[in-house]
Amino acid sequence: MKDERGSIIVLTGNGKGKTTSALGMAMRAVGHGFRVAVLQFIKGDWPYGEKAAARRLAPELELVALGRGFVHVDPENPNPEDVKAAQEAWETCKEKILSGRYFMVVLDEICNAIAYGLLDVDEVVEVLKKRPPELHVVLTGRGAHPKLLELADLVTEMREVKHPFREGVTSRKGIEY
Amino acid sequence: MKDERGSIIVLTGNGKGKTTSALGMAMRAVGHGFRVAVLQFIKGDWPYGEKAAARRLAPELELVALGRGFVHVDPENPNPEDVKAAQEAWETCKEKILSGRYFMVVLDEICNAIAYGLLDVDEVVEVLKKRPPELHVVLTGRGAHPKLLELADLVTEMREVKHPFREGVTSRKGIEY
Repeated sequence: MKDERGSIIVLTGNGKGKTTSALGMAMRAVGHGFRVAVLQFIKGDWPYGEKAAARRLAPELELVALGRGFVHVDPENPNPEDVKAAQEAWETCKEKILSGRYFMVVLDEICNAIAYGLLDVDEVVEVLKKRPPELHVVLTGRGAHPKLLELADLVTEMREVKHPFREGVTSRKGIEY
Repeated sequence: MKDERGSIIVLTGNGKGKTTSALGMAMRAVGHGFRVAVLQFIKGDWPYGEKAAARRLAPELELVALGRGFVHVDPENPNPEDVKAAQEAWETCKEKILSGRYFMVVLDEICNAIAYGLLDVDEVVEVLKKRPPELHVVLTGRGAHPKLLELADLVTEMREVKHPFREGVTSRKGIEY
């Protein structure tokens, strides 16, 4: 018997592979002709690699950059501008989640926005519970809140076993962005 | 100073997200116009979702199914037919790795093939060491061999924190395949 209810999938942990795994899931769903929205918190704009590939998977795949790149936030004392930007980003997410237009919505790096005190986890949980029953939602980012873990159907922790790259290497085109 | 040497990236662990993360990395690289070969061990043919999406990322992205779907293997006593199929699959990998035609080669589920005793890890390590210096190689699958971990520049363990899906659910189109 098939269960057609949508899943809440959380990809967290300090290792690499959270965003790329969400992109791979989006790619797989798009291959079936399903519509997917990938909404990016925190980082600001999407890197070129993702954007160019996503264009080739349009219109089923939509990649939307939200927020304004608030990377360094003091959770005890977030900048009101950052809170405002995150709230506006969340309004877009909410609209997409509740729209009924998508098979899957990816909220990339939203766990960080919650951990930074920029978004209220209870509000996120409430909207996820109200989602269309068949909608899959993928949430990524470090330090996923316990309330998200509790709500989730599937949680994977990406654990860094070995240090990303050799010393002196920061990030490389086609690999990190 | 940029280091343009290619990395060996291992995605292992019992959690979800290894193949999808490799696909996301491939998508990112293809977005930059780089050529990527994704070579699938074990599962047999690629599921429809991956294949259809990959066609839209061709010709930069090549998705190749290798092997014959040897999923249940006794590592103590592998079927000679499976060993032969894995060896043939490995010949294709070797050719792609050494060809100089790619920015990235993904050896999907190869860790399982090694763990099942179908491939010799020393031979794999030797070929990886001889690869073109700028080539990135991504190896996925459960139970990555210690020799692969040692060789790798980056290792992520996908750890299953919460059980995949609700009871009675096996796999769903657009999510699992």
